[in-house]
Amino acid sequence: MSTWGEHFRVTTYGESHCRSVGCIVDGVPPGMELTEADIQPQMTRRRPGQSALTTPRDEKDRVEIQSGTEFGVTLGTPIAMIVRNEDQRPKDYGGSTMDLYPRPSHADFTYLEKYGVKASSGGGRSSARETIGRVAAGAIAEKYLKLSHNVDIVSFVSSVGNEHLFPPTPEHPTASTNPEYLQLLETIDRPTVDKFIPVRCPDADASERMTKVIEKFRDAHDSIGGTVTCVIRNVPVGLGEPCFDKLEAKLAHAMLSIPATKGFEIGSGFGGCEVPGSTHNDPFVVSDDGRLKTKTNNSGGIQGGISNGASIYFRVAFKPPATIGQAQNTATYDLQTGTLEAKGRHDPCVVPRAVPIVEAMSALVIMDALMAQYARECEEHAAYVDHHFAHQAYHCS
Amino acid sequence: MSTWGEHFRVTTYGESHCRSVGCIVDGVPPGMELTEADIQPQMTRRRPGQSALTTPRDEKDRVEIQSGTEFGVTLGTPIAMIVRNEDQRPKDYGGSTMDLYPRPSHADFTYLEKYGVKASSGGGRSSARETIGRVAAGAIAEKYLKLSHNVDIVSFVSSVGNEHLFPPTPEHPTASTNPEYLQLLETIDRPTVDKFIPVRCPDADASERMTKVIEKFRDAHDSIGGTVTCVIRNVPVGLGEPCFDKLEAKLAHAMLSIPATKGFEIGSGFGGCEVPGSTHNDPFVVSDDGRLKTKTNNSGGIQGGISNGASIYFRVAFKPPATIGQAQNTATYDLQTGTLEAKGRHDPCVVPRAVPIVEAMSALVIMDALMAQYARECEEHAAYVDHHFAHQAYHCS
Amino acid sequence: MSTWGEHFRVTTYGESHCRSVGCIVDGVPPGMELTEADIQPQMTRRRPGQSALTTPRDEKDRVEIQSGTEFGVTLGTPIAMIVRNEDQRPKDYGGSTMDLYPRPSHADFTYLEKYGVKASSGGGRSSARETIGRVAAGAIAEKYLKLSHNVDIVSFVSSVGNEHLFPPTPEHPTASTNPEYLQLLETIDRPTVDKFIPVRCPDADASERMTKVIEKFRDAHDSIGGTVTCVIRNVPVGLGEPCFDKLEAKLAHAMLSIPATKGFEIGSGFGGCEVPGSTHNDPFVVSDDGRLKTKTNNSGGIQGGISNGASIYFRVAFKPPATIGQAQNTATYDLQTGTLEAKGRHDPCVVPRAVPIVEAMSALVIMDALMAQYARECEEHAAYVDHHFAHQAYHCS
Amino acid sequence: MSTWGEHFRVTTYGESHCRSVGCIVDGVPPGMELTEADIQPQMTRRRPGQSALTTPRDEKDRVEIQSGTEFGVTLGTPIAMIVRNEDQRPKDYGGSTMDLYPRPSHADFTYLEKYGVKASSGGGRSSARETIGRVAAGAIAEKYLKLSHNVDIVSFVSSVGNEHLFPPTPEHPTASTNPEYLQLLETIDRPTVDKFIPVRCPDADASERMTKVIEKFRDAHDSIGGTVTCVIRNVPVGLGEPCFDKLEAKLAHAMLSIPATKGFEIGSGFGGCEVPGSTHNDPFVVSDDGRLKTKTNNSGGIQGGISNGASIYFRVAFKPPATIGQAQNTATYDLQTGTLEAKGRHDPCVVPRAVPIVEAMSALVIMDALMAQYARECEEHAAYVDHHFAHQAYHCS
Repeated sequence: MSTWGEHFRVTTYGESHCRSVGCIVDGVPPGMELTEADIQPQMTRRRPGQSALTTPRDEKDRVEIQSGTEFGVTLGTPIAMIVRNEDQRPKDYGGSTMDLYPRPSHADFTYLEKYGVKASSGGGRSSARETIGRVAAGAIAEKYLKLSHNVDIVSFVSSVGNEHLFPPTPEHPTASTNPEYLQLLETIDRPTVDKFIPVRCPDADASERMTKVIEKFRDAHDSIGGTVTCVIRNVPVGLGEPCFDKLEAKLAHAMLSIPATKGFEIGSGFGGCEVPGSTHNDPFVVSDDGRLKTKTNNSGGIQGGISNGASIYFRVAFKPPATIGQAQNTATYDLQTGTLEAKGRHDPCVVPRAVPIVEAMSALVIMDALMAQYARECEEHAAYVDHHFAHQAYHCS
Repeated sequence: MSTWGEHFRVTTYGESHCRSVGCIVDGVPPGMELTEADIQPQMTRRRPGQSALTTPRDEKDRVEIQSGTEFGVTLGTPIAMIVRNEDQRPKDYGGSTMDLYPRPSHADFTYLEKYGVKASSGGGRSSARETIGRVAAGAIAEKYLKLSHNVDIVSFVSSVGNEHLFPPTPEHPTASTNPEYLQLLETIDRPTVDKFIPVRCPDADASERMTKVIEKFRDAHDSIGGTVTCVIRNVPVGLGEPCFDKLEAKLAHAMLSIPATKGFEIGSGFGGCEVPGSTHNDPFVVSDDGRLKTKTNNSGGIQGGISNGASIYFRVAFKPPATIGQAQNTATYDLQTGTLEAKGRHDPCVVPRAVPIVEAMSALVIMDALMAQYARECEEHAAYVDHHFAHQAYHCS
Repeated sequence: MSTWGEHFRVTTYGESHCRSVGCIVDGVPPGMELTEADIQPQMTRRRPGQSALTTPRDEKDRVEIQSGTEFGVTLGTPIAMIVRNEDQRPKDYGGSTMDLYPRPSHADFTYLEKYGVKASSGGGRSSARETIGRVAAGAIAEKYLKLSHNVDIVSFVSSVGNEHLFPPTPEHPTASTNPEYLQLLETIDRPTVDKFIPVRCPDADASERMTKVIEKFRDAHDSIGGTVTCVIRNVPVGLGEPCFDKLEAKLAHAMLSIPATKGFEIGSGFGGCEVPGSTHNDPFVVSDDGRLKTKTNNSGGIQGGISNGASIYFRVAFKPPATIGQAQNTATYDLQTGTLEAKGRHDPCVVPRAVPIVEAMSALVIMDALMAQYARECEEHAAYVDHHFAHQAYHCS
Repeated sequence: MSTWGEHFRVTTYGESHCRSVGCIVDGVPPGMELTEADIQPQMTRRRPGQSALTTPRDEKDRVEIQSGTEFGVTLGTPIAMIVRNEDQRPKDYGGSTMDLYPRPSHADFTYLEKYGVKASSGGGRSSARETIGRVAAGAIAEKYLKLSHNVDIVSFVSSVGNEHLFPPTPEHPTASTNPEYLQLLETIDRPTVDKFIPVRCPDADASERMTKVIEKFRDAHDSIGGTVTCVIRNVPVGLGEPCFDKLEAKLAHAMLSIPATKGFEIGSGFGGCEVPGSTHNDPFVVSDDGRLKTKTNNSGGIQGGISNGASIYFRVAFKPPATIGQAQNTATYDLQTGTLEAKGRHDPCVVPRAVPIVEAMSALVIMDALMAQYARECEEHAAYVDHHFAHQAYHCS
């Protein structure tokens, strides 16, 4: 289904060739100032046509709030948001190449198998256009998280092809043990990331190397993958559910729901498997404000599925885009072998534009977990705790 | 919450020191033969005490079906399953080390922050004992999937520390482009995996290298991580939902909900980011039975979030266990620095025992997706499809 | 939350003064012909201005499909539908009466208490305008149910004030024991109901009596309540879940979610409490097509929460509308007592316009239950049933 | 499915002849004292064998907590509860009457059609025994609601057959306009109700009349229905969701999910349809503590789907039990007409034993709505409300 979240619940709709794409966001806290101006910036960061390295289509992607606010303030009721598709005409079935061939590694084949209906856009809902509704909804969540808890969410490109910002080394099979990496995570912000357009990797040298990789594949009518790293700072302690809905599990779910993703790792990740437990464990120290915090952060801010107050950070793998300019030997729907030649422009690498999408999905996960925890910890709880028992409990702040 | 699935819905309960652990499984198809004998084998593969490399505790973990079957046949009603905890006495609060210190990289601290109550077991639900209910439920799903669609689910250990079964190479940054790897995925079965106890890596040489790594860390009172690979064969085409509930997103969610996991990658995974699109794309060929299938499988059996009929395979990262025999400098709940020395035995590496848990969670994901698809494609659907339109549609089988 | 259904999932949005109202419908079966022409008729039956007995506002309520169809056929993806609000300007806060007083028995007070924000429309989502999205979604469900199972859903007005179509009598404390009533339920259709506009009670004499009651209250600047009866014919056997989601429980939930409802009774209902079990029980007979059916239908088509193939019928109570032309002694938000005099026109009785809303919610309940049952009974199930056991089972058709 | 609630989530299991019945309750607030002694009293009020008017089976129904508490305090983790079935042997298939006949107005037929499997207990999950898990879970919710908000939930029998505690009159077509009735609702408590065992109607005269009715039907080997009224006092203002999950809609859902129910009405209910709006509206007055409250309560404590602080009250209709001692002409599974004669003892009227079940389901509804509201109104919300706007908002307490 096209719904995310239990408390801050987002339902998206739309494919490439319909009238509009958008979403309904239910559960938005009432009384928050909100207008399209809060939402448009991330929409604009996501849209195509931002540089010579992305697809040159120039869609405006202007969002319109339909409901749920009055005089620029949220009412607590569902907020519907719409972005009109500027070219909404579905292509009629004809003899075009795309009608004959399911495109390799696209969703054309699986959508047809699943639904039994051939949409003019192939796997319409698997289009990157579907992420517009996510980014719009994420912008609302981000605003609330920032105002109420000063939560910062920042994503950036950490690799393109085999060019890495922090490549694994024998000393640091995972970057999580590298203090320089952790320092970057604590300080990076979006304006800095956007200084490094087109690649959005916040390091001059790495950015240049990555640009060259993308240019090489673009010029070869080919494509290449990459990774996006995201850090979420100031997450309150105690978010996430034990068992099935651990906070990292929800993040993994959210990230792997973004088109073209192939992997997710949190904290030390895959490289952490190669580090001894004695190094990997995060011992406790006392913070300046007199609370326990971890000295290191190989856990990535989550222990036992629950946030521990340290920065949450993770990395997401994006495959090379399936649309390439080269001819491909493949087969038609009618079981004939042949050669498919794609037309038109495409992104040779999606990671620069994926940055705001990763941020949006992160915001949706944290917002939902925050509201779930609100349901548990209201002040009334205190009233019924037995006093004899309470002295044994360590009190939450 | 402690519930997984929309159609095949599993709710687990229990912590280390309570009377029992177990689950309720709702949505089990009626009319299937089912007794404890179908469930116990996976319970036994999961339980501790299987070798000198795992914790020497010897728990029997005998499962008892409470409801939902009669005369060995499922009724379609909820199946409750119970495993008694043999030592169920909660430890009273005293001066013990564990009462003073939140254990590093355990869930003791985060549970206390979340709930405000200090359980005798620390982060009780984050215990590996909670996975008993999952394995029991997974065994039911597996039986149905096998009987109805001949689905095979097999997991094995693919790395321990820096010893890999298929290490990345310049030629194959991802094993998904390595035919030898794909061949293994098509043929591996559980009896073969279990021949390689204690490590469960189905290769004599790699298994020996991994065993030595575990022994080294065990003898150093330390611990080490590793990865588990899982393949799911014969999954029907068309499972998985577009958008948020893509099949790989649900798998990622399921895997990251297993204690001690830090990463998930499907198909080509992180290594696939380094491969050109022209290599990564999976072109179509015609299968022997006259249907489209992909020639390669870098997608890992899923495109656009929907299964394409090829084998689904993925890899899960497990961190080094947090319980180690070495003394650790850390801080107490009362904000005093000190040294925590753990007692007792522990697993120096969890991956061998994680194998059946990964299989169980895989079964729960596929089963739920299968039932979701049933809801969409019943035969009655055919009746209303307009005939003029139908000739344009590619028919599902 | 503003979402209904697990499989056929409807999310509505919008209040009186925003840009548009509408919904997203997820889970619509693919391959069905669908255009606005399928949806508009029920929208038009619901809209105001249909007679001198309803509010004279003349809203067009034109529905626009945004997504999820191509060339007039459903894709299986979410269908967004929008109805523009023609007068969308929120009223600014001023000295108007409505700004000072929470209207008695409206939702102004409870919305303000719940959300802490005062919307210009008072309890905006409690407006009858919210039901537009429900009726649009219901029309899609109805079309599928009709095409796939020939399901008929017909509602009509069964009482206004104390004028009843079938008043309780000593012989028939419940109409369910009256053959004349059951006969009407088997034959009534929408064209017949609409012949009896403005009241929509399909009996000339009762309709005239009800019209007089409404006119009397309208002329007295007062309002009056009434009941709507609904019958659903040709529901497949086996829909509804045991335990919490019994089919009648979902119907009750759906009906009590319609604004202004105060009661629900199914089959024999409240009157059935006064009938002996020996009369109330529905014995089985053999139908013409050689299957079991019940001889009587006091159960209202559902037993143990599951449809039995007989017609499902129930009655819903609607209170007198809260907006009346008379002055009311009440209190302001600022705790001053005073007199509130309402302006503008209103419906003196809502039941005629409630008819299509009751039908829509009925369709949503049956559609969701049908898809839930599909998930359970796919043909593959047959394969695994043990043959030795199967001879003892009574086979479903 | 067998799950109730989004935040305080109850999953029940078990049928008549399995090892045990019970439930898992997830979402219980941590830190509350809780032992079996809090739960057993309602279990005992529900169990059979309480008087000569109920079935003479004497089941002990002892509840055992399996998990989720330590040292008598809730941990916040799932609480599993079990009640062993004392006679757990399923009856083998033989030539017994019940194997041949689907019992009229039982669920035997519909379960078989739904699941295709014939359980020895007929419609096993439709058994009153399934309600054991609900009552156990409800007792936990009730304790929390009482401790945190002093919520009182009291049910009582309001009619048996045609003997009513407050029969409708021309002056009061609904009891909601009768001050004597409202007075009873404000003062009734459980000890008073239980003084009137066996009928549990808190009025000596009415109780005697009802007893005679039950005796008459019992002696005639017949059965009779009745109604249960429930009042919930001290519900916080603001609970319930607009649109589909109005508080009365959830209550209706919950009540109609109890076996043998046929109707639900809240506040003025069906009788309220006959009362003018000018009488039915509840004007506001200022309470002694300086807040708005309604002068009358025809709304039954809910407006626009949201609690308004007044007492919530409603009435539930229970049909005459389907099991009767008389012979019934009906048909066999094999389509033969014949006569079914039931054996054994049964309840001639279920309403006395339904009282604690209605209370339990009420507690589950209110608890879940309370937690939903917690998620929305945490103190952090205040921080972001714009000050210029806030003066226009009426502040929640």
